[in-house]
Amino acid sequence: MFEEAESDPKLAKKAFDLQEPRLRTALLNAQYALLNRADRTLLVVVAGIAGSGKGDTVNLMNEWMDPRHIHTLAFDTPTPEEAQHPPCWRYWNALPAKGRIGIVFGSWYAPLLKEAARKRPDAQRIDREIERIRRFEAELAANGVQLVKLWFHLSASAQAERTKALLSSPETAWQVVPEDRKVPKKFDRLRSAGAAAIERTDLPHAPWTIVPGADAQLRHLRTAETLLAALRRRQAPRPARASAFAADLSTHVTDRLGELDYNASIAKDDYDTELGLTQGRLARATRSAKFHAGHSLVLVFEGQDAAGKGGAIRRVTHALDARQFEITPVAAPNAEEMAHPYLWRFWRHVPTPGRIAIFDRSWYGRVLVERVEGYIAPADWRRAYGEINDFEAQLADNGAVVLKLWLAVTRNVQLARFKEREHSPFKNFKITPDDWRNRKRWKDYALATNEMLARTNTAAAPWHLISANDKRYARLQVLRHIAEAIEARL
Amino acid sequence: MFEEAESDPKLAKKAFDLQEPRLRTALLNAQYALLNRADRTLLVVVAGIAGSGKGDTVNLMNEWMDPRHIHTLAFDTPTPEEAQHPPCWRYWNALPAKGRIGIVFGSWYAPLLKEAARKRPDAQRIDREIERIRRFEAELAANGVQLVKLWFHLSASAQAERTKALLSSPETAWQVVPEDRKVPKKFDRLRSAGAAAIERTDLPHAPWTIVPGADAQLRHLRTAETLLAALRRRQAPRPARASAFAADLSTHVTDRLGELDYNASIAKDDYDTELGLTQGRLARATRSAKFHAGHSLVLVFEGQDAAGKGGAIRRVTHALDARQFEITPVAAPNAEEMAHPYLWRFWRHVPTPGRIAIFDRSWYGRVLVERVEGYIAPADWRRAYGEINDFEAQLADNGAVVLKLWLAVTRNVQLARFKEREHSPFKNFKITPDDWRNRKRWKDYALATNEMLARTNTAAAPWHLISANDKRYARLQVLRHIAEAIEARL
Repeated sequence: MFEEAESDPKLAKKAFDLQEPRLRTALLNAQYALLNRADRTLLVVVAGIAGSGKGDTVNLMNEWMDPRHIHTLAFDTPTPEEAQHPPCWRYWNALPAKGRIGIVFGSWYAPLLKEAARKRPDAQRIDREIERIRRFEAELAANGVQLVKLWFHLSASAQAERTKALLSSPETAWQVVPEDRKVPKKFDRLRSAGAAAIERTDLPHAPWTIVPGADAQLRHLRTAETLLAALRRRQAPRPARASAFAADLSTHVTDRLGELDYNASIAKDDYDTELGLTQGRLARATRSAKFHAGHSLVLVFEGQDAAGKGGAIRRVTHALDARQFEITPVAAPNAEEMAHPYLWRFWRHVPTPGRIAIFDRSWYGRVLVERVEGYIAPADWRRAYGEINDFEAQLADNGAVVLKLWLAVTRNVQLARFKEREHSPFKNFKITPDDWRNRKRWKDYALATNEMLARTNTAAAPWHLISANDKRYARLQVLRHIAEAIEARL
Repeated sequence: MFEEAESDPKLAKKAFDLQEPRLRTALLNAQYALLNRADRTLLVVVAGIAGSGKGDTVNLMNEWMDPRHIHTLAFDTPTPEEAQHPPCWRYWNALPAKGRIGIVFGSWYAPLLKEAARKRPDAQRIDREIERIRRFEAELAANGVQLVKLWFHLSASAQAERTKALLSSPETAWQVVPEDRKVPKKFDRLRSAGAAAIERTDLPHAPWTIVPGADAQLRHLRTAETLLAALRRRQAPRPARASAFAADLSTHVTDRLGELDYNASIAKDDYDTELGLTQGRLARATRSAKFHAGHSLVLVFEGQDAAGKGGAIRRVTHALDARQFEITPVAAPNAEEMAHPYLWRFWRHVPTPGRIAIFDRSWYGRVLVERVEGYIAPADWRRAYGEINDFEAQLADNGAVVLKLWLAVTRNVQLARFKEREHSPFKNFKITPDDWRNRKRWKDYALATNEMLARTNTAAAPWHLISANDKRYARLQVLRHIAEAIEARL
């Protein structure tokens, strides 16, 4: 794999000078074409042997292209805030919009490479990291992020010589960092860690390119050519279906909506008593030291229009400390959100320990409205089940209690509520032409909902289907499910 | 001040029920009018005696209005990340866009109220907090944020009774938090802390309303009426000029641009040596433990078009650790940025200790392009000098080394560079019609620049005016100023 790079090939200055104007012009044009099309983000992962000239070449690329549209993303040991989130959170947060180029130092490969370069690497941990990387990159690639991964490499002797040459003059000695000096001692381990990482993550939708690092001219040329080839692709390569996500599309879909008992109800007096008591349970659970120490709460509210999501949410928040929760109402994505993979806007609202994120509608729009209204291709919403399960599993792995609540009403109850809303001067804002449109597609939505309930009802993030023809009954059920789920964890 | 509230007035249920439909409808209509006009943000500060029903009433307002456009912002003890930033940072970050309503719990009054309610309050600290609040609120009010401040109040006996009543039943006992129980013991101190805070911060552009809290109906009614009156104002009240910001507009403006020596230059050989050595100084300073412990660096690059900002920035970043800095290129604000006060988008990039924020153009656009091109009223850019000085002082108070670098070229050198750019296939992206437009207004920009240099050259954040007719000379000067400024602090 590293034969060529470790032969430390060179490119004559003259040959480079001849190529430079052509490459610069072509790269700039390709960058502007990307910016105008804005059909994808180009994400360049930079890795390799320390002291192989990575930074130097990336600087040059920034000079050759228009740096206003290039984002350099450099990650280090996670900050306290980053450490409170799932590992991928910081990469999601930093993801540039479509049309832009991101150059990533210290990427999601850092933990893998560190482990693999240890004297006695933990094979299981390595497998876990590889799996994490494969899923993350497949999701990015499937959602409009083109990946290019560069491994800068050179021979051990060339690395040592380059470091020595830099150290020989006070004008350049400062460029040598402690990491560079440590390379000679463990070159073989770094080399085989790199080889293993590359071998197991080199996929058509996320290919690795090995860049010989000993000679600056050749290093620049190869990097520029790799970027140019990537930018010139008509379409970003997509992961093969099989390699992407594991939602089992053969699961039998039952008519859970149809089979629900819609007659469930509760008397007003019982409701008043029960409401206070259940809110009390929730208040105690969410204020407990245990909850604050290692747990967070993610509540997803979905349901037909006029099922009473807003009222249920208010009964929940009434029991919470105002400093503790955030409600995210989810509507159609705005321009910035459209320019990112669809889960991006939800990653930004993932809670830290002790905090509560409430979603009034959610990422499930992907497999509901976006599917039913034909806003996306069938392949996109079919893939989304797996992506969503993976997203929620990451939250749960990080200590989040994830609850998904579907408030279900029957068609005639919805109609009565629509009419009541239309006739009330302070409720008619709640009813829009979209609501009537969705109502016409009742069956299509029911089909999509049943399929969603079947495919995304995981142990880590279960669905609770609640009859909401009686609002009081539904509110109590919501509160009970939440209180029980937290209590079970504490 | 609290006479009425401490008489614990009541409103009959019937009287309230009569008013409710009218108020709900009016509030909703007013909220939608605000949303459509989107000419301001309504920010409602909620404070008062613990256990006076604040949360209860805010919940009701969320039910009466459309909660999708109301943001509840609740602040607690600063998180580690918040504590690393200037105190106002978290409020800036959370500010809702124009058209929206924000309800703020645990606002910027919390530190003041806490200090004022101590047994032996520190008068100087109180004065500092008041001054901070007055400046912050004046800046918000002057930039499209309408402020409404509610102080919920009741008599000591009513507070104790309300707490007791809630505690008497398991359905409501959980609503009582430890803070509520502590009130009786220190009612007088809380009361006078509130009175002092209100007295010293009750201004036409940020008025306080005292809401009697003992009776739920009256509390709801008064709150709703206060919000309604605020929403119905044609224009948000603006701070009187005198009360706002303290930039001295009488400072004499000298022609610093005209008096600069543009012949300064350096030979290529000397440059190469000096460049490496100065980058080395910068590299050592920014990697030092002292810098990481308590300092950050804010670099503002401004200058005429084609003065060489990009090249200078690259020479700086070459010496920095890629994980340490962020470059923010500043162009015309996007829609989200336009919907906030103009400094909002820059607050988001304020660095934490050990980090470096580089601005390629900056908030100075307010007093340069926005002034010269007439995008804003003269009152806005005149006020901006003070607002900018205040912003930079907050950064410096928090440990930031703030440097502002103006790269100055003469008109003929600019013309030569424009032409060179136009003729180079990989530089012509750097030249746009805007550049030619700005060039035509050379004198207007010079005037604005000289005034900016005079009014915002503070000890905490000095301007360095650098001749950039010779690019190498300019780059070295930039590096030297930065290295010196950091070294002086360590």
